[in-house]
Amino acid sequence: MRLVRFKRGEEVRFGHLEADCVVPLAAGTFVEALTASPDGESIPLGEVTLLSPVEKPGKILGIGVNYAAHAAESVSFIDTKKPDVQKWFNKQVTAVNGPYAQVHLPKVSEQLDYEGELVVIIGKRGRHVPRERAFEIVAGLTVGCDYSVRDWQRASQTMIMGKGFDTHAVFGPAIVTMDEITDLPNLQLRTFVNGEQRQTGYIRDQIHDIAAQIAHLTAAFTLEPGDVIFTGTPAGVGAGHEPPKWLKAGDKVRVEIDCLGFTENEIVREPGDTVIG
Amino acid sequence: MRLVRFKRGEEVRFGHLEADCVVPLAAGTFVEALTASPDGESIPLGEVTLLSPVEKPGKILGIGVNYAAHAAESVSFIDTKKPDVQKWFNKQVTAVNGPYAQVHLPKVSEQLDYEGELVVIIGKRGRHVPRERAFEIVAGLTVGCDYSVRDWQRASQTMIMGKGFDTHAVFGPAIVTMDEITDLPNLQLRTFVNGEQRQTGYIRDQIHDIAAQIAHLTAAFTLEPGDVIFTGTPAGVGAGHEPPKWLKAGDKVRVEIDCLGFTENEIVREPGDTVIG
Repeated sequence: MRLVRFKRGEEVRFGHLEADCVVPLAAGTFVEALTASPDGESIPLGEVTLLSPVEKPGKILGIGVNYAAHAAESVSFIDTKKPDVQKWFNKQVTAVNGPYAQVHLPKVSEQLDYEGELVVIIGKRGRHVPRERAFEIVAGLTVGCDYSVRDWQRASQTMIMGKGFDTHAVFGPAIVTMDEITDLPNLQLRTFVNGEQRQTGYIRDQIHDIAAQIAHLTAAFTLEPGDVIFTGTPAGVGAGHEPPKWLKAGDKVRVEIDCLGFTENEIVREPGDTVIG
Repeated sequence: MRLVRFKRGEEVRFGHLEADCVVPLAAGTFVEALTASPDGESIPLGEVTLLSPVEKPGKILGIGVNYAAHAAESVSFIDTKKPDVQKWFNKQVTAVNGPYAQVHLPKVSEQLDYEGELVVIIGKRGRHVPRERAFEIVAGLTVGCDYSVRDWQRASQTMIMGKGFDTHAVFGPAIVTMDEITDLPNLQLRTFVNGEQRQTGYIRDQIHDIAAQIAHLTAAFTLEPGDVIFTGTPAGVGAGHEPPKWLKAGDKVRVEIDCLGFTENEIVREPGDTVIG
């Protein structure tokens, strides 16, 4: 199953993604959609906009330096010693953005960077989940881009200010259930900026695999349906180049993962206005 | 106004807190409660349990080392250099707990610590809010205890694993609106463990005041109604003693702030069971 959330006109619904259409579901919430039946005629893909498959996650977590080849290029913004320790941060839930939506170049920084990532969507509550049972609480996998503002990330050891800017948590298009994924370790991830390939990685190269991540997180707290986990990025981020290759307005960032699809975002300047109320 | 959420029998409602009773409100959500009218007879305080005034915040943010006197005792778990930089972390929203509820001693750690704090509850959306307008998005203030698991906090520079354990985000009892607070800088905060006073501080000693915090956060992302901000703890945490004074099962932790009330939690061992689904 490939679960999507889509907009058609003013209507937002959940659906199953087929090759060239979406099949609407009888579901009002993400949890309902996980087991919902079809409800209505198939709609050609050209008539819909695919949105983030979860609208309002309870939490969005991300793990730092989870690919060995990414460690060397990351020394300016994260402590890369102790690779055996899982380094978790939050992305703010207000940062959720669609797979093909525009992404903001911040008013307060010129150091916008990309991190193509495999993303896990949680489907069931879980606490103290042992690694051998970890996938029981996984709804499925999707593609994501963990946009990161490097100077804000670097300013504080906790990193979260640089990870949580509005529009910077891109994931989608579909939650692909595990039965559709035959060879998870060998899925390849690729990130392109304006067509130039910047990142290539395989899920097998994660230092802490998905099961280890879920076991560690749930030793401390409960994961809930709709929670989103960014599982780390391979080498090739903009900060890893000399000089760094920061994103500019007009750039297009595409992240692909075998079997899961792709995200593609255009970078635009944020409005930058004061909003109150 | 002193806004509370309370349970009476099986019913959970919002209300106004009076000296010895609560007045129920015609409100189903926190945002409605901010402007709701009374709806029903006053209920004696003895008949209700006061809950966290926000049930499901979109996000819970906390600032590290925000009182100079707390910096010296914190060197083992946070970088205390660069006091001019705001050091933000998330507490997981699944950690929300009531002002008088039990707090879990983790299965995976013996280093449970307390941090008495002034807590801000956001009442309006805000982005790029200048410091002189910061209180326009504040619903009110309350008391909180930022329970922290020091070994898990210390293990990773990002700290969040040690800040997000289930039951560890205690705040309440009431959201006290700013018109009831005449001298915010001189409010005194006190934390007691089993009656022994451990922390004493004044809000005026915050390195980054509430307005500066809101200006900084909203430069990066949107704050929303119901978001919760822990504004830092004064000196006297358990980790600051030699040897450290970790919390044990049976301990009672009370945090008081002038004019705002108090929280009081009993520490209990967590069940520690695997929960799936």
